[in-house]
Amino acid sequence: MNLRPIPHPRVTFNDRFWAPRIETNRLVTLPIEYEQCRKTGRIGMWTWKPGRPNPPHIFWDSDVAKWLEAAAGSLATHPDRGLERQADAVIEGLAGIQMPDGYLNTHYALVEPEKRWTNLRDGHELYCAGHLMEAAVAYFEATGQRRFLDVMCRYADCIADTFGPRRGQRRGYCGHPEIELALMRLYRATGERRYFELARFFIEERGRQPCYFEVEARARGETPPRRQGGGHEYFQAHAPLREQRDAVGHAVRALYLYSGATDVAAAAGDAGLMAACRRLWRSVTERRMYVTGGAGSSRHGERFTCDYDLPNELAYAETCAAIALVFFAQRMLAAEGNGIYADVLERALYNGVLSGVDLEGRRFFYANPLTAHPVSYAARPGEDKGAHTALDRQEWFGCACCPTNLVRLLASLGQYFYGIGPRALFVHLYAGGEATAEVAGQSVRVTQTTDYPWDGRVRIAVDPARPAAFTVALRIPGWCRAARLEVNGRPVAAASCLKRGYARLNRVWRAGDRIELNLPMPVERIEARPEVRSDGGRIALQRGPLVYCLEEADNGPHLADIALPRDAALTARRQPKLLGGCVTIEGRGCRRATRGWGSTLYRPAASPRVRVGVRAVPYFLWNNRGPGEMRIWIGET
Amino acid sequence: MNLRPIPHPRVTFNDRFWAPRIETNRLVTLPIEYEQCRKTGRIGMWTWKPGRPNPPHIFWDSDVAKWLEAAAGSLATHPDRGLERQADAVIEGLAGIQMPDGYLNTHYALVEPEKRWTNLRDGHELYCAGHLMEAAVAYFEATGQRRFLDVMCRYADCIADTFGPRRGQRRGYCGHPEIELALMRLYRATGERRYFELARFFIEERGRQPCYFEVEARARGETPPRRQGGGHEYFQAHAPLREQRDAVGHAVRALYLYSGATDVAAAAGDAGLMAACRRLWRSVTERRMYVTGGAGSSRHGERFTCDYDLPNELAYAETCAAIALVFFAQRMLAAEGNGIYADVLERALYNGVLSGVDLEGRRFFYANPLTAHPVSYAARPGEDKGAHTALDRQEWFGCACCPTNLVRLLASLGQYFYGIGPRALFVHLYAGGEATAEVAGQSVRVTQTTDYPWDGRVRIAVDPARPAAFTVALRIPGWCRAARLEVNGRPVAAASCLKRGYARLNRVWRAGDRIELNLPMPVERIEARPEVRSDGGRIALQRGPLVYCLEEADNGPHLADIALPRDAALTARRQPKLLGGCVTIEGRGCRRATRGWGSTLYRPAASPRVRVGVRAVPYFLWNNRGPGEMRIWIGET
Repeated sequence: MNLRPIPHPRVTFNDRFWAPRIETNRLVTLPIEYEQCRKTGRIGMWTWKPGRPNPPHIFWDSDVAKWLEAAAGSLATHPDRGLERQADAVIEGLAGIQMPDGYLNTHYALVEPEKRWTNLRDGHELYCAGHLMEAAVAYFEATGQRRFLDVMCRYADCIADTFGPRRGQRRGYCGHPEIELALMRLYRATGERRYFELARFFIEERGRQPCYFEVEARARGETPPRRQGGGHEYFQAHAPLREQRDAVGHAVRALYLYSGATDVAAAAGDAGLMAACRRLWRSVTERRMYVTGGAGSSRHGERFTCDYDLPNELAYAETCAAIALVFFAQRMLAAEGNGIYADVLERALYNGVLSGVDLEGRRFFYANPLTAHPVSYAARPGEDKGAHTALDRQEWFGCACCPTNLVRLLASLGQYFYGIGPRALFVHLYAGGEATAEVAGQSVRVTQTTDYPWDGRVRIAVDPARPAAFTVALRIPGWCRAARLEVNGRPVAAASCLKRGYARLNRVWRAGDRIELNLPMPVERIEARPEVRSDGGRIALQRGPLVYCLEEADNGPHLADIALPRDAALTARRQPKLLGGCVTIEGRGCRRATRGWGSTLYRPAASPRVRVGVRAVPYFLWNNRGPGEMRIWIGET
Repeated sequence: MNLRPIPHPRVTFNDRFWAPRIETNRLVTLPIEYEQCRKTGRIGMWTWKPGRPNPPHIFWDSDVAKWLEAAAGSLATHPDRGLERQADAVIEGLAGIQMPDGYLNTHYALVEPEKRWTNLRDGHELYCAGHLMEAAVAYFEATGQRRFLDVMCRYADCIADTFGPRRGQRRGYCGHPEIELALMRLYRATGERRYFELARFFIEERGRQPCYFEVEARARGETPPRRQGGGHEYFQAHAPLREQRDAVGHAVRALYLYSGATDVAAAAGDAGLMAACRRLWRSVTERRMYVTGGAGSSRHGERFTCDYDLPNELAYAETCAAIALVFFAQRMLAAEGNGIYADVLERALYNGVLSGVDLEGRRFFYANPLTAHPVSYAARPGEDKGAHTALDRQEWFGCACCPTNLVRLLASLGQYFYGIGPRALFVHLYAGGEATAEVAGQSVRVTQTTDYPWDGRVRIAVDPARPAAFTVALRIPGWCRAARLEVNGRPVAAASCLKRGYARLNRVWRAGDRIELNLPMPVERIEARPEVRSDGGRIALQRGPLVYCLEEADNGPHLADIALPRDAALTARRQPKLLGGCVTIEGRGCRRATRGWGSTLYRPAASPRVRVGVRAVPYFLWNNRGPGEMRIWIGET
C-alpha cells in the first residue's frame, strides 16, 4: 500500500477546532518553550564550560531539537524572519560543537567527552541524535536551507561508521529508541540508502544475544544490573523485535521502536517484520490502551504492565506515549491503508494527546489519568500517586519531553490528514481547511468544510487541475455506525464502496466535484471488555472521536457516586462560551444524597438515589477551570 | 464507667468457631513462631557476640516478647511443662543481659551499647520495653511466677528514672508508641503508681515543642530531617495529643498511642484527654476505616491518608493495625461502656484481624487488601503494589510484627468477651463457652450456647453462687436490627431496656436463670457513604459481624464485572465442608459474557448481562484455596 502523507505545509486549517489550536501553539507555546529552554540553560548550552554550574543534561539536545522541529513546522506555514533567526542561532550553536568526525552531542562533547558511546543503554546519545535528525529534515523541508541537514548527515555518517555489523563496528543500539524512525526520515529526505540500512541494523540487532547493554556494562567494569521490569524488557531489548509478542517496558520507547520498525518493514518490503509490528500493534491497541489512546499504565518505569490492567486513577498514560501511538498509527496506516489504524490515531490525538496542553497553550500534563481526586492525591505519599506531578497542568518539567513533543506535533499536524496512494487520495481525518497534492499526475485541491469534531457533516470539494480518474478514499470512522455519502448531490451507498474502513469513490474527478459526507455523532455509551477490571459496571461517554469526562466544576464533588441509567436520554449541547466553545453531553443521572448520613461510614444499602443533572465535557478540555475531581468511567444503573 | 474485663483464663470456648482457632493457634502457630524466632536468630540473640553475623535487630525484642506473651496466654489455660521450660529459658536469656541499672534491650546492650537512648524516634527501645512489660505481666498472671515481672519492674524503674519532667531527666518518648499502654498494664498488675505517672508523662510530652526528636537528632549531630508524611505526623508527634483532631501517620503507632492515652485518661479521670481520644476514635472509625476494620490505607508509611480515601486494591490495612484497633476499642469500651466501641472491635476482630492468618495457622498476611487481582499484581512494578508482599499469605516476614501480634491476640482472646462494672456483667461478644467472674459480691458463672457468628441465637445461662441483684447487659450489635430477648422463657422488649447498645436486664439473678437472645442475621447489602470514591455504585455483603467477599475459586475470574441486582435474593447457606465449615452467601447476579468480544477492547455498551450464580465467602477465609482474584465491594445494578 504505502500511502505517502501530504506534507503538512500543504495542508491548511480554517476551522474552529484546529486552526485556533495551531495558532495558539505557534504564537504562545512555541515562544514560551523557547523561553523555558533559554531560562533552564538548554538554549545556550553549547557555551557551557567545565567548572560552571548547570552542565548540559543528556536529554537537553532532544528538547532543543524538538523545539527546532516545531519552529520548522511553524516556518513552513508562517514565514517569520525573527523566528528563523532564533532557530538559525540555535543551529549554529549546535553546529559549533560538532566534532571533526561529525559527532554531535552537547552533554558528551562538553561534560563527559571520555564517555562517548560507553553507555548506550542510559546515555540517550542516539536518541538525541534522532531528534536532531528529525529537526534537520523538518528545517530543510520548511526553509530549503541545507546547513542543519548537512550537519546532521555528517553526524549520521559518523554513527553509520561507528555502528553496524561489520568488523570493528559496535553492535549497539540506543536504550531509548527514536533514531530508527529518524534515520528513515533522513533516508526519505536525502535518498541516502546508508541511513535506511543503519535503521534496519538498529532494529534487527536489538534483543540479540549477547545483549549489547550487558557487553557495554562489562566494558565499563560494571556487573550488568537487573533492571526494573525484569531483564531488558524496559528497553524492549529482551528479545529480537521479530519475536516479540507483547508490548512491554517503557511505553514511549516501545512505541517509537515499533514506529521505526514499521518504517523499515515497509521500506524493505519485509513481511516478517511487518507481521511483528502488527502483532505489537494489536497488543497495544487491543489489550493495553486506555479509551483515551493513553498507553503505559504504570508510572514506575512509565511502562506497560499486563493485558487489561488499566487503572484509571493511577493511570500514567504519558502525553509522549499517546503522541508515540500517533506516530505508530501513522506508519501502520501508511503501510496498510486500513482505517483501524486511523481510528486509533484519531482516538489518541483528540483525547490522550490533546489533554496534554491547556486551552491557553501554556501548561502541560505529563501524565493523563482517567480519574482525578485531588484531595486524596495531595494526602497520599509520593509513591502512591499515579501522575507525574500534581493533578494540575504545569508550566514545565525537569524532564521536558512532553511539552516539546506536543509543540512539534501541533506545528506539523497537517501531515496526519491525508495519504496519497497510487491513483488514490485518502482522507484520514476531517477538519475544515484545504490541501493540495499530486494525484494521478494531476494537482488536486481538496477543500473540507466542516465543524468536525463537534459536528459530523463534512463537505469536500475535489478540484483537480484537469479531469482525472482516481480514487478518493474517505475514512468512515470506526465510531460511526451510519455514515451517509453523496457525490454531486447523488447518494452513494457508503457500505457498498467500503473497504478496510474507507469509502472508496472511484471515478473521473473534475473541478467542481463535491462530496457530502455525513457522519452522525450520537452520544455513545462505551463499555470496556469484561477483563478490564477498572471499568467493570461503568461506561464512558463518547461522541464522534471525543471521549468525555465529568468534572467537579459541573457536577460537584464525589463523582464516583454518579450513575447514569442505561435508558437515560443524553443530549449533545453546543456551548459556544464554555471552554473555548465545545459540545457538552447533558442528561439526568442519579446519585445518593450526602445529607442524612450523619457520621455513618457504612450502613445497609437503602439510600434512595436522587435524580441530578449531569454534564460531561470533552476529556481533553479537563482541568481548564482549576483543579478538581474528574472521571471518565461513570457508574451505570 | 470503667468496665474491667474478665481475664482470659476465666473465659473458655467450646464452640465451633473460636475453640478450634484458639487450639490451632496454641498447637500450630505458637510452636512454628517459636521455630521461626529460633531459626532467624531472635531466640538465642542474647548469646550474640560482636563480630558474629546476624546481629540482633532493634525489633527483635518485641517479637520474642509477643511470643512470650502468647506462651503465657496458652499456659494460663493449658498448663504445659515443656512450653513453660521453653519460655523460662527465653526469660533467663533476656534477664541475663539486663544491665546493673535495670536496662534491658538486646540490640542496644550487645550491638550498639554506646547508642542507648540516643534515637528514640527510630530505635524502638521503649517500644520493645513495652512489649516485654506486657509479656511479663501476662506471664506472671498465667504462671504466678514473679521472676520476669521483677526483671521488667527493674527495667521500668530504670526508664522512670531516665525519662520524665524533672531536672536531669530526658523529656523523650518513643517513635513507636506501645510503652504507654504497657506501663498501664504493669501499673494495674503491680499497683505501682510510678508506672502510671510515666505513661501519663509519655502521653503528655509527645508533640510538645521543641520536639524531642529534633532535640535528640541535634544531639547526634544531625540536622533533623523532614520525615515522610510531613513533619512528625508519621509519629503522631506533630502536636500534643490533646490537640490532635485527625488520625494521622503510621496507623499502628497511632492506634497504640490512642490505646495508651485512653488507659491514662480513664485512670486519671481526665475528661479532656478522654475527649481527645473520642475525637480520634471518630476520625478513625467514621472516616478512615475499611469495612473490614482495616486501618491505614497507604503502604507508604503504613499510614492514614485523608478522610474517605479507602482504595480497595491498594489497601494496606496492616494486620497489626486491625489488632491495634481492637486494643483501642477495648479501652474505649471499658471507659465508656458504649456498644459503638464493641461494634468496631467485633468488625475488626472477625474480618481485618482474622484475615491475617490462614485456616491452618501457618501463613500470614501483613497487608489485607479488599480487592486482589494477582495477575496484574505480578505484572506491576513494586511501587505500584498495595500489599506488603505477594497476594498470598507468607510463612514469615523480616519484620515479623503481624504473626506475633496475631498469636498473642488469639492466645488471650477471652478477655474481649465480658466486662464487669459495678453490679453489672456486660456481655460484649458472643461465643459458645463459659466464664466466671465476681459480680455484686457473688461468683457468677455465665455459659453461652450458640453457633455465633454463623447463627444469631444465643442461650445464656447465668448462675450466681447465691441469688443477687445485678445487671446483665447484653450487647445488641449495631448490625442487628431486630433483636429478640427472653428471660426464663418470658419475652423482654429489647428496645425498652436498650441503653447505649446494651440490653440491660436488671433483676435478682438466681442459679438456673436462662436468657435467650436472638440476633437475626439476614444477609445485608452494605453501602459506603458517597464520599468514599472507591466504593461508589458498589455494595459489600455482610451477615452478622462477617464481611463477605467473592473469590475466583467460586466465581471464576473478572470479578469486577459481576453485579448484584438490588432485588436479587441472597441466601445464607451452611457449608459444613467448605473452608473448615462456614456459611456462604449465594444468589443470582449478572455479568457480561467474555465471549463475543473478539479482539475488541472498547465498544458501544450493548452487552447483554447474563445471569450467573454468585457465591460469597467470609472475607477472613479468603486465600485459603490458593491465589486468585478476590473482591469485597461488588457492583450493583
